[in-house]
Amino acid sequence: MTQELQHEEKTIEWCKTQSGGYSLMVDQTKIPYTYEKVEIKTLNSMYDAIKTMIVRGAPAIGIAGAHGCALFALELLSKIAPKEALEDIWNKNIPLNTTESQKTEFFKELEKGFDYLNSSRPTAVNLLWAIGEQKKIVENSKTLDLRDVCANLIEHAIKLENDDIKINKSIGDYGAQVIPKGAGILTHCNAGALATVGYGTALGVIRSAFAKDKTIQVFADETRPRGQGAKITTFELVRDNIPVTLITDGMCSYFMRNKMIDVVVVGADRIAANGDTANKIGTSTVAIAAKYYNIPFYVAAPKSTIDLSIKSGNDIIIELRDEEEVTMVNGKRICAEGVKIINPSFDVTDNSLIAGIITEDGIFKPEELKQKLQK
Amino acid sequence: MTQELQHEEKTIEWCKTQSGGYSLMVDQTKIPYTYEKVEIKTLNSMYDAIKTMIVRGAPAIGIAGAHGCALFALELLSKIAPKEALEDIWNKNIPLNTTESQKTEFFKELEKGFDYLNSSRPTAVNLLWAIGEQKKIVENSKTLDLRDVCANLIEHAIKLENDDIKINKSIGDYGAQVIPKGAGILTHCNAGALATVGYGTALGVIRSAFAKDKTIQVFADETRPRGQGAKITTFELVRDNIPVTLITDGMCSYFMRNKMIDVVVVGADRIAANGDTANKIGTSTVAIAAKYYNIPFYVAAPKSTIDLSIKSGNDIIIELRDEEEVTMVNGKRICAEGVKIINPSFDVTDNSLIAGIITEDGIFKPEELKQKLQK
Repeated sequence: MTQELQHEEKTIEWCKTQSGGYSLMVDQTKIPYTYEKVEIKTLNSMYDAIKTMIVRGAPAIGIAGAHGCALFALELLSKIAPKEALEDIWNKNIPLNTTESQKTEFFKELEKGFDYLNSSRPTAVNLLWAIGEQKKIVENSKTLDLRDVCANLIEHAIKLENDDIKINKSIGDYGAQVIPKGAGILTHCNAGALATVGYGTALGVIRSAFAKDKTIQVFADETRPRGQGAKITTFELVRDNIPVTLITDGMCSYFMRNKMIDVVVVGADRIAANGDTANKIGTSTVAIAAKYYNIPFYVAAPKSTIDLSIKSGNDIIIELRDEEEVTMVNGKRICAEGVKIINPSFDVTDNSLIAGIITEDGIFKPEELKQKLQK
Repeated sequence: MTQELQHEEKTIEWCKTQSGGYSLMVDQTKIPYTYEKVEIKTLNSMYDAIKTMIVRGAPAIGIAGAHGCALFALELLSKIAPKEALEDIWNKNIPLNTTESQKTEFFKELEKGFDYLNSSRPTAVNLLWAIGEQKKIVENSKTLDLRDVCANLIEHAIKLENDDIKINKSIGDYGAQVIPKGAGILTHCNAGALATVGYGTALGVIRSAFAKDKTIQVFADETRPRGQGAKITTFELVRDNIPVTLITDGMCSYFMRNKMIDVVVVGADRIAANGDTANKIGTSTVAIAAKYYNIPFYVAAPKSTIDLSIKSGNDIIIELRDEEEVTMVNGKRICAEGVKIINPSFDVTDNSLIAGIITEDGIFKPEELKQKLQK
């Protein structure tokens, strides 16, 4: 039903090779200037890619985490396996001859690597979730040939990639139902195809709505300090011919007061059990303005973003990032020397401000999450 | 009482010379990189200085308007007066010999010039107010020697300059009374010494508060698109050793939720009779967030900013400025090509969001303005 807008190209994907493969991802720090991909082949370079935001967006970070786990397993394997086995890890006829103590050491190191990768960014739960998924794969693979451990981690990473796109299309289809005809839709930051494997969450809703109704308009918040709205959301929407007006982060009240915004849709980095939602800094300011003007505010996110282990938003760790993100723009300082900077990368939107959380299983009120999703 | 923080240097001032003089102003487009002054000597260059924001800030624009009127009178005089009279306009012994028809033409052209200058920026009422003040001077000078018309316009412009500093110190002293001990104070844009002749309105309140209590902290909104908070407010406060943290425009909710902001003080460009306040774009977003968190939100402005002829904020004309203010930062584009831009330079804060309007005559509730200030 949303066929015409499918971008089959993945933002992040596993490239399978005879020796296992590597992660290939769009370098998001270069959007909108150039659209180029980088190959990530080690745990450390994946850690750096996540931390420096070559890959960003909670669902994409999750997949990056799953890839990183597989990459590290291949790295560890390369330290103990014979060269000929490494050249074709899919060929089981080459003997591996690993000892029990080598296997024990492999699993011990693997877990350490997984935990290290998880420390690259603290707020988005999708990283923790995806690494947790890979930990389960490891748990169920402990008796196998170590090549099979690697293969299972690779296959599961690819499964999570494919699931992500399906999930986003489902989010999009549910979300499109709450977008009024001809709506002005405000979004903050980028919860698009480039924040996921493809299609996007908040922008997935917008893509699905646009497929049905060509008269919608998008307002994209610039999203300082890093400007993902200006750089990435405008890039995605222009590419899809969806009309988009770029506004600065303070402008939302002006456009709401002037009745140009009918609905707000944003993504999420972690949703607590009570529906409190951590998302890119500035989101809660928009949510408060939307409430003031009686404009519905929706969060679009896969269920993997919901962290039922966290009671409320007060317990979500908010990442603080470098001063330079605030003080420097396009290589030039924008403020006086001697100023202090506090640069929180996320804020928490109170559940009372959220009209609904749009997931792949439907739209929930914040207070329904616990009851509907607890297993 | 606020002696130690006085900056006696004026942001904009009339430099008197034998031939009349000119306007000297800080070039605010170069702050914080360089602090340099420009001489403005004609009506057209004053129009451009206001439009391109070499001079900005409602009270400073008002003074620029008053200067522009005097400059234009001198320009018109130079077309009809003998050279020796122009070399020393203060010396009445040199005959001027203007005919009645020359005088009639002078006053006709003068009024046209005043109205042209008034069209340079639409939102701040201080420009209209100051030009109105100069129109009254002209009205009362119609029987005089044209040199006296010029002299009266010059003297009145200088009076308005000096009044502005006195008014701001009074605003500062009233405002300091509502700043709690050790407060975190959020301000938006720049309503400082550089937005006025000196001392500032919102920053005047902060300067007065800091003189009494060294434990206050300021949070300065970056204020995209032009970044006056980042560029000018941080420059002013660092220079005065007042602790200042620069935040992006979306961050206010984060710092309010974390109880780091106790009060908000901003300036104003035009206040309607019901207290609705036009100020730099983004102000109303901050006011809504402050209301949500029960944080008092104050407007600091001279009475000349209050426009009792305008019933509510809906009647205030909001200036729309160039796309490039949004799309370009430090000479580089920040978004995709093909995006639409709407760039309102101001927004309207509803009177219900305003705890008080701090003027040189005291602090008024929005609903008190009409009764207290109507003559």
